[in-house]
Amino acid sequence: MHDLLIHSCRTLTFDEDGRPAVLAEQNIIVDGQRISAIQPVSEGPVDAREVVDARGMLATPGFINTHAHAPMVIFRGLAEDVSIERWFNEFMWPLESNLQEEDVYWGMLLALVEMIESGVTTVADHYFFMDQAANAVTEAGTRAALGWAVFGDRGYDALAETADFVARWQGQADGRITTWMAPHAPYTCDDDFLRATVEHAKRLGVGIHIHAAEEMGQTRASLEKRGLTPIQVLEETGVLEVTTLIAHGCGLLPEDIELLARYRDHVGIAHAPKTYLKLGMGLTPILPLRAVGIPVGLATDGAVSNNTLDILESLRLMAMLQKHEARNPEVLTIPEALDMAFHGSAQALGMADRLGKLAPGYLADIILIDQSGTHCQPLHSATASLVYNNRAGDVQTVIVDGNVLMHDRRLLTLDKAEIMANVNRNMDRLSQRVPGRRIQVYNP
Amino acid sequence: MHDLLIHSCRTLTFDEDGRPAVLAEQNIIVDGQRISAIQPVSEGPVDAREVVDARGMLATPGFINTHAHAPMVIFRGLAEDVSIERWFNEFMWPLESNLQEEDVYWGMLLALVEMIESGVTTVADHYFFMDQAANAVTEAGTRAALGWAVFGDRGYDALAETADFVARWQGQADGRITTWMAPHAPYTCDDDFLRATVEHAKRLGVGIHIHAAEEMGQTRASLEKRGLTPIQVLEETGVLEVTTLIAHGCGLLPEDIELLARYRDHVGIAHAPKTYLKLGMGLTPILPLRAVGIPVGLATDGAVSNNTLDILESLRLMAMLQKHEARNPEVLTIPEALDMAFHGSAQALGMADRLGKLAPGYLADIILIDQSGTHCQPLHSATASLVYNNRAGDVQTVIVDGNVLMHDRRLLTLDKAEIMANVNRNMDRLSQRVPGRRIQVYNP
Repeated sequence: MHDLLIHSCRTLTFDEDGRPAVLAEQNIIVDGQRISAIQPVSEGPVDAREVVDARGMLATPGFINTHAHAPMVIFRGLAEDVSIERWFNEFMWPLESNLQEEDVYWGMLLALVEMIESGVTTVADHYFFMDQAANAVTEAGTRAALGWAVFGDRGYDALAETADFVARWQGQADGRITTWMAPHAPYTCDDDFLRATVEHAKRLGVGIHIHAAEEMGQTRASLEKRGLTPIQVLEETGVLEVTTLIAHGCGLLPEDIELLARYRDHVGIAHAPKTYLKLGMGLTPILPLRAVGIPVGLATDGAVSNNTLDILESLRLMAMLQKHEARNPEVLTIPEALDMAFHGSAQALGMADRLGKLAPGYLADIILIDQSGTHCQPLHSATASLVYNNRAGDVQTVIVDGNVLMHDRRLLTLDKAEIMANVNRNMDRLSQRVPGRRIQVYNP
Repeated sequence: MHDLLIHSCRTLTFDEDGRPAVLAEQNIIVDGQRISAIQPVSEGPVDAREVVDARGMLATPGFINTHAHAPMVIFRGLAEDVSIERWFNEFMWPLESNLQEEDVYWGMLLALVEMIESGVTTVADHYFFMDQAANAVTEAGTRAALGWAVFGDRGYDALAETADFVARWQGQADGRITTWMAPHAPYTCDDDFLRATVEHAKRLGVGIHIHAAEEMGQTRASLEKRGLTPIQVLEETGVLEVTTLIAHGCGLLPEDIELLARYRDHVGIAHAPKTYLKLGMGLTPILPLRAVGIPVGLATDGAVSNNTLDILESLRLMAMLQKHEARNPEVLTIPEALDMAFHGSAQALGMADRLGKLAPGYLADIILIDQSGTHCQPLHSATASLVYNNRAGDVQTVIVDGNVLMHDRRLLTLDKAEIMANVNRNMDRLSQRVPGRRIQVYNP
C-alpha cells in the first residue's frame, strides 16, 4: 500500500542530456516525502491510500522561485513608473519603514496562496521578520529557503540575530525549511560585514543569498569607488567560498562570468525578468553564464517590482527576452527554457539532487497543469504550450513533500478569505509613505 | 425600460487628457447597440429588461486586437525556435499549403472563443477563406474588421475576389463586420498590384490592412533593391491615401515616421510584441510614433508566432519592453499604456468615434474584469493591476453591441466542445509539412 498515487497523468521528463519529453498515461507513486516510482498505467493497478485523478493533466516538477521578497505583496501597485533610485528611496524603503511583524506573517501567507495557485512549491525568500515567514511556510506546507535580510549599518548584533534565525529554522517543518544568511548587497554591506557573514555561514553550514551586480550602474559605481566589481567583492570577502545565490546579475561583466565559472559547482544566479523590464535594469547575460556552466534559475523578485509571483510569466519572459536581445529566435529554445525552469532553478538553490525532476528518489513536489484550455488548443506541442501558452490559472493541483496543498484549484492548507481580510485590514497604514523616513538609502 | 443594465461596477474612465480613473459603484445603461448613460448607483434604481450584476467588477471597454491571423490557432506550437526565414519558408507557408476552407471556419471559431475568454471584442483579421471567418464572427456575436489576404503573384482576378469579399460583407452582422482590402506586404505585392488595391479600396470606400516594415531586414532589403523603404513604397503607390492599418513597423526608420506623421489622421500601426520577441524582430518605435501623433494599437498577430491571442499579455509586454529599450522605467506609464490599449487601438482601426471608451453614445462593447484574485490583492491600484497583474482568465463577462456573449465565464453564443472536437479532428493533416510545397517564398 503506497501513500499517494497520481493516476494517469502525462509526465514531463528529461533524458540524460536534459531534453524534455512528455510521456502519456503514467502513474506517479509517492511514499513518504519522495517519488518511489513512475510507470505506465498499462503496468497495472497500484494500491495507494490517496489517489489523485490526473487524467489529461500534465505533471511537472513544482516550480522553484529562486529569489523573492514574498511578503512585499502587501505593497503591490504602490511604486509604478519610477526609476530604480526613486523606487528605492521615495517608495520602497519609506514604505518599509511602516512594516510590522504581523504584516510579514499575513503578507507571506497571501504570497504563498498566490504561489501555490501558480504552481510554485519552493521559494528562496529574502526579507525581514522571517520567523513570521517561516511560520507561514510551516502552515502552508510548501518548501522554502529563507534568509533574514540585513543591511551593514544595522551592525554585528543584528547580523548575529539573522544567524540565530538560520540556526532556529534550519531543517524545520519536516525539513521543508532550509535557511540562508541574507546580507542585502555589497553596496549596503561593507567588506568586514560580508566577511562576518561568511563566518556565520561557515559555522552554521549554510549558504549566502545576496543581491549583487543588480544592474550595470551598480557595477560601474563599484568600479569607480574601489576598483572592484560587486562580484569581485564577493570573491574578495570570501562569500563565494560558501554556497551562494546571487540576485540578479544584470550588471555582470565578462570578467565576472569568468570569475564565477570557477565557483559554478556551488554558485547560482536568480533571474527575475519582469522586474528588470519594469525598472529598466537590462538583463542577466544568461547565454554566456550557461555556456560556462553557471546555474541560472527563475525568479519573480518582490511584487512591488514584478507585480505578481507568477513564475510561468518569468519563464516565458526569460526565453523571449534572450531571443530578443540576441535578435536570434534560435537561442534559448523550449528544451533549454524548461531545463532552466526546473533543473537550473534547483541547481541555483543547491538542491538539484532532490528537486526539479520527476524521478524516483526525488522529493514529491509535483504540480498538475491543465492544457485543455482554449489558449492551448489544439495541443500540437505540450512543451511549447508550457513555455508560451499556459497561465498560472491552469495549475490545477499542487503537491509538496507528498502532501496535496491544492486540489482542482481548491486550497487545502490555507484560508484565503481570512488571509485577504487580514491583509486588507492594514491597507491604509501600508500605503503610507513618510517623506524622509526610510529604512535605507540607495546610493550604490 | 432600458435594454441592459450593468449594475454597480467600477468603471475605467478617461478624462479629457486621456488620464484614466476608476469610479466606484456605477450603473452602465445600454439601449440597442450603444451605451446610453453611465451614472452612480446612488442616483437611484434603473429599469432594464436584462441586468448583469457587476458588483466588485471592473468594467472596461472591450479590448481591440488590431492585427491577427486568428484562424492560425490551428497551427499553434508547430513552428518554435526558428528564424523568421525558416518560420515562413520551412514552417508557416508549407503548413498553409494544407489549409482548407473548413479549417478557417473552425479555426476562427476557436480563436473567437479564446478572444472572448480574454476580453477581445473586436479583431482586425487578415487571412484566407474569409467568408468562413465572417460566418464565424456572425455566429460569435463579436465585432471584426476583416480582410482577405492576397499575394501579388496570385494576380488581379484574385485581388478582385478579395474586393468582392469586401463588398459582400461590409456592414454585415448588424454592422459588426467591417471589411478591408488586405494585400500581404510590399515585398510580396509589386507596385502595380498595390496601386490596383488602392483603386479597389477607393471604389469600395474601405481601408487597407497590410504588413510593412515588419523588421529592419525588410527595410534594408527594400532600400537595397529599389532605394525606397517599405513605407515610402506605401506612399508612392497611393496606399497611404486611404485608411491604412500597418503591421508591424519594427523596421521603421526616422524618415518613415516623419512621412507617416503626414497621414496620421487615417494611418495606424498594429503592435504585436510577443511575436517580435519570439522571432527576434526588434520592436516598433512606439515612443517616436506617439510623439508625432501616429496611432499605435495593440495586437496579438497569429498564434503560430504569438502562441496565444491574449491581449492583456500584449499590453503588459508593450509597456515593459518600451521601458526596457529606453532603459527608463518612467516612459510608457500606466496611463499611456491604457490609452494605447483602448483609444489607440480604436484609432488605429479608424473607429475611435465609437470604440475604446465607456461613454454615452459609444458602442456597448464592455467587459467585466475580476480584480479580487490573489494575484491582484491587495488592490492598491486598479490601473496598475489591469496592466501588470490581471490575466486573461480574470475576464468574467463580455458584452458586444449590447449583447452578452460570455457571462461569469460561461459562453453564451458558441459551443466550445463542438469547436474543439472539429479542430482536433484535423490535427494530423494540419501538422503535415510537405517539403518544397508552400504558398509563398519569404525573400524580402
